[in-house]
Amino acid sequence: MTRVAVLGAAGYIGGELLRLLVGHPEVEVAAAVSSRFPGRRVDTVHPNLRAVTDLVFTDPEEAARREYDAVLLATPHRKTAELVRDWSGRVKTVIDLSGDFRLRDAEVFERYYGAEHPVPELLGTFTPGIPELYREELRTADRISVPGCMAAAGLLAIAPLAARGLLTGRVELDARTGSSGSGVTAGEANLHAERSGAMRVFAPVGHRHEAEIAQLTGLDVRMTATGVEAVRGVQVVARVEAAEGVDDLAIRRAYREAYRDEPFVRIVAQRRGTYRYPEPKILIGSNFCDVGHVYDEKSGRLVLIAALDNLVKGGAGNAVQCLNIRTGRPEGLGLSFPGLHPI
Amino acid sequence: MTRVAVLGAAGYIGGELLRLLVGHPEVEVAAAVSSRFPGRRVDTVHPNLRAVTDLVFTDPEEAARREYDAVLLATPHRKTAELVRDWSGRVKTVIDLSGDFRLRDAEVFERYYGAEHPVPELLGTFTPGIPELYREELRTADRISVPGCMAAAGLLAIAPLAARGLLTGRVELDARTGSSGSGVTAGEANLHAERSGAMRVFAPVGHRHEAEIAQLTGLDVRMTATGVEAVRGVQVVARVEAAEGVDDLAIRRAYREAYRDEPFVRIVAQRRGTYRYPEPKILIGSNFCDVGHVYDEKSGRLVLIAALDNLVKGGAGNAVQCLNIRTGRPEGLGLSFPGLHPI
Amino acid sequence: MTRVAVLGAAGYIGGELLRLLVGHPEVEVAAAVSSRFPGRRVDTVHPNLRAVTDLVFTDPEEAARREYDAVLLATPHRKTAELVRDWSGRVKTVIDLSGDFRLRDAEVFERYYGAEHPVPELLGTFTPGIPELYREELRTADRISVPGCMAAAGLLAIAPLAARGLLTGRVELDARTGSSGSGVTAGEANLHAERSGAMRVFAPVGHRHEAEIAQLTGLDVRMTATGVEAVRGVQVVARVEAAEGVDDLAIRRAYREAYRDEPFVRIVAQRRGTYRYPEPKILIGSNFCDVGHVYDEKSGRLVLIAALDNLVKGGAGNAVQCLNIRTGRPEGLGLSFPGLHPI
Amino acid sequence: MTRVAVLGAAGYIGGELLRLLVGHPEVEVAAAVSSRFPGRRVDTVHPNLRAVTDLVFTDPEEAARREYDAVLLATPHRKTAELVRDWSGRVKTVIDLSGDFRLRDAEVFERYYGAEHPVPELLGTFTPGIPELYREELRTADRISVPGCMAAAGLLAIAPLAARGLLTGRVELDARTGSSGSGVTAGEANLHAERSGAMRVFAPVGHRHEAEIAQLTGLDVRMTATGVEAVRGVQVVARVEAAEGVDDLAIRRAYREAYRDEPFVRIVAQRRGTYRYPEPKILIGSNFCDVGHVYDEKSGRLVLIAALDNLVKGGAGNAVQCLNIRTGRPEGLGLSFPGLHPI
Repeated sequence: MTRVAVLGAAGYIGGELLRLLVGHPEVEVAAAVSSRFPGRRVDTVHPNLRAVTDLVFTDPEEAARREYDAVLLATPHRKTAELVRDWSGRVKTVIDLSGDFRLRDAEVFERYYGAEHPVPELLGTFTPGIPELYREELRTADRISVPGCMAAAGLLAIAPLAARGLLTGRVELDARTGSSGSGVTAGEANLHAERSGAMRVFAPVGHRHEAEIAQLTGLDVRMTATGVEAVRGVQVVARVEAAEGVDDLAIRRAYREAYRDEPFVRIVAQRRGTYRYPEPKILIGSNFCDVGHVYDEKSGRLVLIAALDNLVKGGAGNAVQCLNIRTGRPEGLGLSFPGLHPI
Repeated sequence: MTRVAVLGAAGYIGGELLRLLVGHPEVEVAAAVSSRFPGRRVDTVHPNLRAVTDLVFTDPEEAARREYDAVLLATPHRKTAELVRDWSGRVKTVIDLSGDFRLRDAEVFERYYGAEHPVPELLGTFTPGIPELYREELRTADRISVPGCMAAAGLLAIAPLAARGLLTGRVELDARTGSSGSGVTAGEANLHAERSGAMRVFAPVGHRHEAEIAQLTGLDVRMTATGVEAVRGVQVVARVEAAEGVDDLAIRRAYREAYRDEPFVRIVAQRRGTYRYPEPKILIGSNFCDVGHVYDEKSGRLVLIAALDNLVKGGAGNAVQCLNIRTGRPEGLGLSFPGLHPI
Repeated sequence: MTRVAVLGAAGYIGGELLRLLVGHPEVEVAAAVSSRFPGRRVDTVHPNLRAVTDLVFTDPEEAARREYDAVLLATPHRKTAELVRDWSGRVKTVIDLSGDFRLRDAEVFERYYGAEHPVPELLGTFTPGIPELYREELRTADRISVPGCMAAAGLLAIAPLAARGLLTGRVELDARTGSSGSGVTAGEANLHAERSGAMRVFAPVGHRHEAEIAQLTGLDVRMTATGVEAVRGVQVVARVEAAEGVDDLAIRRAYREAYRDEPFVRIVAQRRGTYRYPEPKILIGSNFCDVGHVYDEKSGRLVLIAALDNLVKGGAGNAVQCLNIRTGRPEGLGLSFPGLHPI
Repeated sequence: MTRVAVLGAAGYIGGELLRLLVGHPEVEVAAAVSSRFPGRRVDTVHPNLRAVTDLVFTDPEEAARREYDAVLLATPHRKTAELVRDWSGRVKTVIDLSGDFRLRDAEVFERYYGAEHPVPELLGTFTPGIPELYREELRTADRISVPGCMAAAGLLAIAPLAARGLLTGRVELDARTGSSGSGVTAGEANLHAERSGAMRVFAPVGHRHEAEIAQLTGLDVRMTATGVEAVRGVQVVARVEAAEGVDDLAIRRAYREAYRDEPFVRIVAQRRGTYRYPEPKILIGSNFCDVGHVYDEKSGRLVLIAALDNLVKGGAGNAVQCLNIRTGRPEGLGLSFPGLHPI
């Protein structure tokens, strides 16, 4: 049994961590920490957990007095960095789901987050929480930084091709996302009457997740982010250029090599039908990331598509997968829900 | 030209009043009043009005210094009663879209609103803003109280039958509504991620609009209200009992008599097809209320169905129709948009 | 291991059966039968099952030549009755998810289904697939008929009170449902552009599921069914009358007695918050049915509310629960997914 | 009065033409032509037109015997070309809303439509139905071809900059669209249960509308098209490169010059707020196209965004605007609906 604390447990990512960890056969949630609702039952905030757990939210101070094997932080940006500093050394493994330690360069952080990093000395001490790229490092990592949801999807689409030198030039990346990414404290702009049916370009340039993809692939990434009608779900569509002489077979081979044995990346390569490209809605609740591509050899146009559930493979599920790796357990433990159709 | 002020102009009902009145050929919006956004362009809050109006929100104090022919109040409950008291006498016509003067009995008001009426001396001085039932009175009314959105739909379904003595026993009324009814200041429960796809029974018993229907029909009305996925739209389904000897022909004749010449009530009596009962979505933006029924003579089961756009026929459009009547103009002026299909 | 065949496996209920049975640790899906897609991979039709199963659809004739412990039928009404006749005797257990054997009385069947029953001799030989009411019978039942989705929700709300004599008079039942209930072969009326955002009263009177509730509770049930915006999800709101002298405590006690040990019925009795009544959306993918009530003792108004996922507890999940009971296994095997929040 | 016939009047674009033309003060709909529903009332198919018109669908043969000033074709691709040939010469003005005459080059047509053009001799005889670019030509045009919905949005975003030489390199264009674009005869893939909540990349490369934008701007356009959750609405996001030395002021000036006097193009240039970029949902039912941009001078990244209602400015509304120009009437006649907020 691994004893864990979840910080920020009343938020959307926090709730998803609870759902997965409470259902995990070898993890014990020793504290579901919330400064907003200490003493209240977890299921009053996350009603899907009724009859599933009797957990009660713990006050942060109280939580700090207990012992854990791992702490998972689903707390706000900036504030998280300080919490990480406080918890480092006190527990074996810190898994951070905020944006605070995704970028390694203090300058890049400042450019994208609009503020100095509060704990710069810890920058660069985190292993990216991306099993597909950092599995070996994750087995022994003390600090893990789970990537942003759109970054995770973008990386899984781009990295295998970038790593094999199949791409050239810059990446034009269009990301679409549901409303849950804005969190439970989102304001008036996220009222149902405003957000419903929206195609809201909320970051035409400069979204933070673009820096994560650039950092790990070395490419010039230009991302546009749009909120569309969905609660959960992220889809990225990357328009890239294949390097000289690259044909479709090379692309397919690269994906196959990269993902053949991956438990949570599926290559979608169906010729016809409604679901021939990655579609987030059938991934809701699941830890899969689906990846597909179209390469028009004649024009040299290469389009990569990836989809995932932002709260699962784009957040909590990815964190649990990392925890499984870190604790030497089968990677898919507690992550078996396959998604639904229709939905 | 009729000079009007719209109070609460930054809200959802307020915005709809502006849309209709700015497009009205014989009305001048002399003040769009907002305490939140004085000095800001109206179209920064209501983006559909870009290039349609250059209006700027007026501060309440500034607005109080000008002259108008009519004042329309789309302000919060309780606060509105005091505004009405202040404005009464100063303008010819007060049209209140809040709930403050819909009920005539102070005791009933207190039961349903959970507080004493702030200006009880004005209770009972308002004419209900229901052209179909109070057209003659509205021609000369100084104070008009526009009914609640679900009450309006319920009344238009029930009143013609009740008035002709065709009903007996009590009314079981199921009302469904979109999210815009909660207003622009709705809280966390109305975040898109929470409200999306909901079937939220928010008032299993005791909803205020039920008292309005009871008051005007004299029937025992038992209403349940559920929020469903929609921004605009109200539908009521009333299960009623036909009086002894009433047949389907009598029901149909009653509706026909009542609504034959009504410009904004349509009797839906299609035998087949997708839209054979009133459906709110095709009414979005329109001032129509659609009314239909099914009477199973064998079992005596009579089901009445009505639908409207809560912000138009259930609010702002109804108010404009009343204003047209009050000012002696053609009733449909500025209200010609028919709704869309598909949508 | 229990070997099963799923008939109608390319439909929505069929797909859900496959999802649950493929993930079930002690069931082997020996045939996923489809007359439309024989030879095609199951995951080309149900894309959520990619990387989850390599199953291929089997032709009905080929499927008929194999041996199974149980057959589950998710085939169309009428046609199913004949399939049941063919399979009876050939396998130990037949679980029918169609409407063909839900009603026991040939006359009632004819009234509600508009046609004579094709195999009347088998009527009345089925045990209702409702673990909460027929658990003992299900342990040895050879033929099980899973109730309709709205009937299941209605029964779980009403039966405990009816059985204890707490109700009197008739039941006014309002049922709301998502679009998946119409199946994969639904026509033009179910196109997204028509069905989206709908509040479609598709059965103001006479819906078939009402007869199921009446049959098992002995009450006069009057149901109205409306399609609302959702893919999955059923909610019923039943307005009933409490018998003389019944107070809120008696209602609560009845539910507690009935459901205290039920693994898949949750009593929702939260005083405040967004989810204080049963809400289908947090049940998507889960086998829970949530039940709640409001009793206004003063007026005697009693409102019962139940919610479930029509494809799970209202269909495939319920069938798997019955199969677990029938095969002497823990009832929740393969049914542990709790639902999501937010969604 | 202008007498018009609408061909394909039972479809979605056809219904929208009827809504606009029936409400047009100087147009008479002399025939609403449908081969599917001859003799049926128009409002049985388009329920929003109940009480708005008593029109009955006319059989194509019967329709062919009458006289009109203009014929508007909302008929299927390929079939339309032949209808155009038949009607040319018989009426003064043919306005085609299909794709058959949007491309001028037979070879390009064949590449994008996958078939030879059925009436190549008429290719190139059509004036593009884009008032903003071809107003003078439209005043006397006998044949008008209304652009595709995504092409219209793309062109209005790109053309003013392209025409002034402000752009270089290629255009990466991401288009998102609602479900109504698939038409009333769409199949299983467009069932609500499949299409709801989708992010369906239906044309990663090679969408027909891309060829229209390329043809009129001379640029290399690479478009990806995705269906998102909406019934109406198109949004395009174009990533382009500014030519050497172009600054933000030049971009803004170009748009202002191009659209200052345009009645139906609005430049969205709000610094903050929820609606600071073009958003289709507030345009539903309106003939506006909203255009905005972001230019990050430092990185040289220029993002153009346009939004419209695909059935109005992307189809029927644009056609009516062209008809108004062609008949010498005020351009906005019958097109005054501004759109809604919230919606």
